[in-house]
Amino acid sequence: VVLVAAERIVSVASGADLPVPEQAEIIDASGRYIVPGLMDANVHLCAAFTPELLLEFEGRYEEVIEEAAQVALRAGVTTVFDTWGPLRPLVAVRDRINRGEVTGSRIFLAGNIVGFDGPLSADHFKVGDVLGRDVVDRINGQWEFRVGRELLLLSRDEVGRRVRGYIESSGIDFLKYAATGHINSEFITFSDRVQRAIVEEAHAAGLTAQAHTTTPESLRMEIEAGADLLQHGNVTGPEVIPDETLDVIVDRRLPVAAFANTQTYMKWARAHLDSPVSAGFQTWEKNNRLLIERGARLLLTTDGYISTPRVLEHPQMGEWVRGPEFSMQLGESHFLWMQAVSELGMAPMQVLLSATRHLAEAYDVHAELGTLEPGKRADLLILEADPLEAVGNYRRCAAVMKDGEFVDREGLPVRRVLTAE
Amino acid sequence: VVLVAAERIVSVASGADLPVPEQAEIIDASGRYIVPGLMDANVHLCAAFTPELLLEFEGRYEEVIEEAAQVALRAGVTTVFDTWGPLRPLVAVRDRINRGEVTGSRIFLAGNIVGFDGPLSADHFKVGDVLGRDVVDRINGQWEFRVGRELLLLSRDEVGRRVRGYIESSGIDFLKYAATGHINSEFITFSDRVQRAIVEEAHAAGLTAQAHTTTPESLRMEIEAGADLLQHGNVTGPEVIPDETLDVIVDRRLPVAAFANTQTYMKWARAHLDSPVSAGFQTWEKNNRLLIERGARLLLTTDGYISTPRVLEHPQMGEWVRGPEFSMQLGESHFLWMQAVSELGMAPMQVLLSATRHLAEAYDVHAELGTLEPGKRADLLILEADPLEAVGNYRRCAAVMKDGEFVDREGLPVRRVLTAE
Amino acid sequence: VVLVAAERIVSVASGADLPVPEQAEIIDASGRYIVPGLMDANVHLCAAFTPELLLEFEGRYEEVIEEAAQVALRAGVTTVFDTWGPLRPLVAVRDRINRGEVTGSRIFLAGNIVGFDGPLSADHFKVGDVLGRDVVDRINGQWEFRVGRELLLLSRDEVGRRVRGYIESSGIDFLKYAATGHINSEFITFSDRVQRAIVEEAHAAGLTAQAHTTTPESLRMEIEAGADLLQHGNVTGPEVIPDETLDVIVDRRLPVAAFANTQTYMKWARAHLDSPVSAGFQTWEKNNRLLIERGARLLLTTDGYISTPRVLEHPQMGEWVRGPEFSMQLGESHFLWMQAVSELGMAPMQVLLSATRHLAEAYDVHAELGTLEPGKRADLLILEADPLEAVGNYRRCAAVMKDGEFVDREGLPVRRVLTAE
Amino acid sequence: VVLVAAERIVSVASGADLPVPEQAEIIDASGRYIVPGLMDANVHLCAAFTPELLLEFEGRYEEVIEEAAQVALRAGVTTVFDTWGPLRPLVAVRDRINRGEVTGSRIFLAGNIVGFDGPLSADHFKVGDVLGRDVVDRINGQWEFRVGRELLLLSRDEVGRRVRGYIESSGIDFLKYAATGHINSEFITFSDRVQRAIVEEAHAAGLTAQAHTTTPESLRMEIEAGADLLQHGNVTGPEVIPDETLDVIVDRRLPVAAFANTQTYMKWARAHLDSPVSAGFQTWEKNNRLLIERGARLLLTTDGYISTPRVLEHPQMGEWVRGPEFSMQLGESHFLWMQAVSELGMAPMQVLLSATRHLAEAYDVHAELGTLEPGKRADLLILEADPLEAVGNYRRCAAVMKDGEFVDREGLPVRRVLTAE
Repeated sequence: VVLVAAERIVSVASGADLPVPEQAEIIDASGRYIVPGLMDANVHLCAAFTPELLLEFEGRYEEVIEEAAQVALRAGVTTVFDTWGPLRPLVAVRDRINRGEVTGSRIFLAGNIVGFDGPLSADHFKVGDVLGRDVVDRINGQWEFRVGRELLLLSRDEVGRRVRGYIESSGIDFLKYAATGHINSEFITFSDRVQRAIVEEAHAAGLTAQAHTTTPESLRMEIEAGADLLQHGNVTGPEVIPDETLDVIVDRRLPVAAFANTQTYMKWARAHLDSPVSAGFQTWEKNNRLLIERGARLLLTTDGYISTPRVLEHPQMGEWVRGPEFSMQLGESHFLWMQAVSELGMAPMQVLLSATRHLAEAYDVHAELGTLEPGKRADLLILEADPLEAVGNYRRCAAVMKDGEFVDREGLPVRRVLTAE
Repeated sequence: VVLVAAERIVSVASGADLPVPEQAEIIDASGRYIVPGLMDANVHLCAAFTPELLLEFEGRYEEVIEEAAQVALRAGVTTVFDTWGPLRPLVAVRDRINRGEVTGSRIFLAGNIVGFDGPLSADHFKVGDVLGRDVVDRINGQWEFRVGRELLLLSRDEVGRRVRGYIESSGIDFLKYAATGHINSEFITFSDRVQRAIVEEAHAAGLTAQAHTTTPESLRMEIEAGADLLQHGNVTGPEVIPDETLDVIVDRRLPVAAFANTQTYMKWARAHLDSPVSAGFQTWEKNNRLLIERGARLLLTTDGYISTPRVLEHPQMGEWVRGPEFSMQLGESHFLWMQAVSELGMAPMQVLLSATRHLAEAYDVHAELGTLEPGKRADLLILEADPLEAVGNYRRCAAVMKDGEFVDREGLPVRRVLTAE
Repeated sequence: VVLVAAERIVSVASGADLPVPEQAEIIDASGRYIVPGLMDANVHLCAAFTPELLLEFEGRYEEVIEEAAQVALRAGVTTVFDTWGPLRPLVAVRDRINRGEVTGSRIFLAGNIVGFDGPLSADHFKVGDVLGRDVVDRINGQWEFRVGRELLLLSRDEVGRRVRGYIESSGIDFLKYAATGHINSEFITFSDRVQRAIVEEAHAAGLTAQAHTTTPESLRMEIEAGADLLQHGNVTGPEVIPDETLDVIVDRRLPVAAFANTQTYMKWARAHLDSPVSAGFQTWEKNNRLLIERGARLLLTTDGYISTPRVLEHPQMGEWVRGPEFSMQLGESHFLWMQAVSELGMAPMQVLLSATRHLAEAYDVHAELGTLEPGKRADLLILEADPLEAVGNYRRCAAVMKDGEFVDREGLPVRRVLTAE
Repeated sequence: VVLVAAERIVSVASGADLPVPEQAEIIDASGRYIVPGLMDANVHLCAAFTPELLLEFEGRYEEVIEEAAQVALRAGVTTVFDTWGPLRPLVAVRDRINRGEVTGSRIFLAGNIVGFDGPLSADHFKVGDVLGRDVVDRINGQWEFRVGRELLLLSRDEVGRRVRGYIESSGIDFLKYAATGHINSEFITFSDRVQRAIVEEAHAAGLTAQAHTTTPESLRMEIEAGADLLQHGNVTGPEVIPDETLDVIVDRRLPVAAFANTQTYMKWARAHLDSPVSAGFQTWEKNNRLLIERGARLLLTTDGYISTPRVLEHPQMGEWVRGPEFSMQLGESHFLWMQAVSELGMAPMQVLLSATRHLAEAYDVHAELGTLEPGKRADLLILEADPLEAVGNYRRCAAVMKDGEFVDREGLPVRRVLTAE
């Protein structure tokens, strides 16, 4: 019995132990299974990353974001962490959802990744001489806010100042910085001490910090800099996480938001992808096995976005987005993640914790979210079958409650934008 | 005295000869000069040619076109011939203006240039791997209507069928076909006999025909094919129009819609442009001198479009669009054209005829337009000074009448779209 | 019995009819089959078409050409027609072979294709900003000799003058001009009358003329211009040769140098190539069927060149060069051609004539070559099995004689250049 | 009086103090000035950096290097430090010169910059789809030797092993590693501790170490890693060297190999270059002023190479190489450097030390080179006018002695390769 009042859980008890207030509306979930609302440590709600979508939907990013937050919620993800996106529209939608004006998954957001330029910059989508400088700058400007790639040329103190200014003026919920480049993923962005300065600014402002990391050495640097959560910490190029770093992760119980592909996808990848790309995925998997074996704290993380055919078939998108059970389609990706880590041997309860309590703790939101405990927000799923029996049972969802109210899942998304096609 | 009733001119007389009906509203233009409304043989009202504008304004091309038609009208151009643009929006705006629902320059339109693909195709703006195939096809499709570049591979009969189908279904006012490529401007598109077949289809449907021509040989082919109007017939690469072709143009009084640059621009061009580009402009000018000397029938033609900084600074735009008195800015370009041909020695009355009667005759609309004669549409300008004294006096316009009504020029454009910036 | 003296055939007779001079060296070919030396209507001996090969082997093109001529000869092709290549090196090697200083297939050459720029120009290999203008111009200059793409902008008379100058100064054996572009294969290059002028210049100089043609209309134009041989006349885009043109080809017995793929290749093409590319190959085949059915005069033509892995894997090479039984590898391609047309139903004797007598007649060299007749050059193959029984028997070649001398096939190529890898 | 025997200086004295052996050949330099042979801390003898030169001269890099070493020597530069080039050819020429088989400037070489791929890789010249993978790999392979960009993905230990292997097998004279990318000049390549590991490997092998640095933070990291010489340490992006780093440089007397432009060039740069490029040069200059004011130890460093028009006009070369007194033309660049630092206020004797003693000390070759002292190699210039009076007097060189022998400067370069054009 889970007793809910206003937006929160009042009490939790099994069987008849709990006195139910007379006026309570009773939802009979007997024979069903109640789990906390699921969380995703890494999504991109504004999926409009291709040049044409960025242009076509300019001025409508908020609609795009709302739709995505609803697609996630419909699938049982009651909280998402948006780790890179256009700041103002994300803030606007987050606040609208939090005020109850709009339905959608609860959003925590980072805005820009400190050290990255916008999506139409050299390290992301290449625009060559096809788009004019003015439009490119205008769109990138919705991401950058003076914490873009220019920071790589600045002194530690100036980087610190910029990050502080960004935190103060942006309304972000957590800080993400680049420890490596994006396409230029072998390169390091910031030195040890600059990374430390960035993390310190986040902590001074009461925010958690995480880094975009893609190499063994940048993973180590991020840890030494004090990051609270290792974002896609299992992405380490052709080689696995070095032992010394793995030891630190395990010993300090550092949460690793780890990408994961299902075996179906991996089989396809081996057959169809260029060997370095395929090798990179093998490393993800090897690292996941190591982390699971060592009992490290993995978090559900998907990079999930509204991946329509138009996005996936863009000529600059890698072939790898076209495989079966591709891991990044919002609304589906969290199921695939749970399946993938189960296939690698993660215990059912650990899978559940990866998507709930551990994730809430890593992001320091566990006072409000992540478990079914009195005083916490009433985010929960009613499942028709036991998720600890079979991970596929997360798909058999009878009802989704967020903030104490049942979600009208059939009505979502309210307005079709990217999914309209 | 010009007596106007409904949309048309009732009678024209000098001095007191004309009895003025009692109920007539009298506009005192004494001391001023009345000329027919000006016409431009070649404009592009949907200036959204750059990839970003095509995307940003998709769904709003009609607004773009309306604005352009109003910019032209405000400057005294009461009739324009749109020689390449998105068919459906052009038709919609043309009809709306003709029905009097919207103010704007009177539009005659060709839709696509038969044999050209849309603006995001290899022969126009290059999009490489920056834009997805779907969006490119969707936008190009608004131009192509099965009379695109694929026609170059088809038999004469099939080309004829396609052109016939296009004429029947499109609602175009005149037919324009490619005699040469656009960027690939040395190449011929259609053989003599295919060109003839295309022109015959136009004539069979009661339409005039013209070709996009850029070489001496394609100019000759177009003439032999029976074109009614030689569109930018003075563009012939590095060499001038051969004598034999010039003789034919003069003898048959074929109207040549001739591009023209002012001396100010030409001086800049010689100093700042690559020598082949500059040489091309020299050829324009040499051809114009020859045509004027030989008494050929030139028409005012500008390629005019709303040339905002965003358009002109696009990386794929040539340096040549950035010179002073650049000849293609709608609303200004017709003044510059008249100045340019005057500088080359064209007589004042010929300049006026180029922009009015001769142009109307070439397009076969002289029953309605082009002169101030009883029965014609009442399109006229009241100038404050004699345009036959100084070509600059066309700028000193006191009033513009179109279809018998004075235009509220201050109020144009009604809605700023491209010019908003 | 074939009696040979000096470089020529003295007499031919069957059985014991022929009195053999006493001093004659007797080669016993009893039980074997003697056929004229094979000919290929279209090869490119200087296969160095990729930017890197053009640069690496600059200064050594003659070596490259010698090797290719030897690779062809070794495989029984005693005469080749080089239809596009660097003029001076080709002339030098042709003359060296003709003087007997070097072994190799007898070369007839066209040098440049009139209207084409060199191999590093926009219509062939794209070099972007990777190679400097100087080196690009220098290499292209070895092809162009003032009859390049610039001719498309010139008047008929000037084109005629240029072609005449080229014929007089170059030492070419036959004239080839572009009726269409290369990559820009839909575009026509020259008008009817300019094509006629080009062909007339060739004929006035006693040369045969042919065109590069890739569309139905350009094929017709070439025929009307008076071309003696239709080079890859079966390449007509997505549609087959129109009936009217097919009738003319058949009625006038115009020789069609027709590309052909084996059924093995075609099966692969349907499965692996983009549909327009695959469709193009289907058209080749459909045209071949029509031409064979109608009894048109096909010629063996392969575009053969030394197609090493380095050439075939160049990133600008289409996927289509990577199929099994790819039709353009010199030394192999003529066998595949004969196999391919046999598979389409061409009679065995016709296959042989395509590669010998008909080809010699088309190129107007039949006074010297193409049959085993007294007075002709003694070019012949001794085959171990009857080629009229099975087309594969052309591969079972016991000996190759050229100009009355047996070729030491084992020793060819004398010096490995491109084939060294 | 400088007494020389064999390759070395025996004694140095002023006036009549020195007893001259009877058998000595006496060169009368009275009224002239003797200075040690000049040194350049950074040249690229194999200037064949553009794709076309790399291909054209493949197999002849040794000739290219010899020519460059002779061009340098002719201009008075008796010792050069080649900081990035093809290993094997550089080693071969270095050894040939050292054995006295070939004349040329004495070469010390680094081979590859650890962490950089070869010249046809993404961070240097872009080759797109113009050159095939095979040729690109083959040429880059002459630089990389398993210490290329792949190291950025490896663990510290593995990087250490690779560097050790490279040092042991290569025959290099000093070690240079990348602290930042080349075109991607904002990015850091190696973490603090990996940089330290690299420097330690160099030191363990008795080599000096230096880094390619382009940002304030990478400069600091390099210093902390223990680099012996700060290669182009004055290149720090838009901002000058931070005070804390400047203090360290001054306090530890760290040698800074500093690029320098003359005022003539700087004036041109301000007028003609994009503002970020121009701003970068301003920073060089500001840093130089600071370093000179603070008495830091600057070294003559030029990046000098044989900069022929073909190299400078390559489309991927920045506009900045085309200014007057461009600082990187070997044989001229050291004069310009000395002029440039003089213009910034460096004292004449400091200028001389920058090019001689200080440079020799920084590279740890001062036991043999850098001053005119007994026991050192007899490398010296006889100047016609006092270089301490006017820096231009280094150009007035009457004679160059290297290893005790006068150089026949008129005869250099012995064989013209790149300078042939």
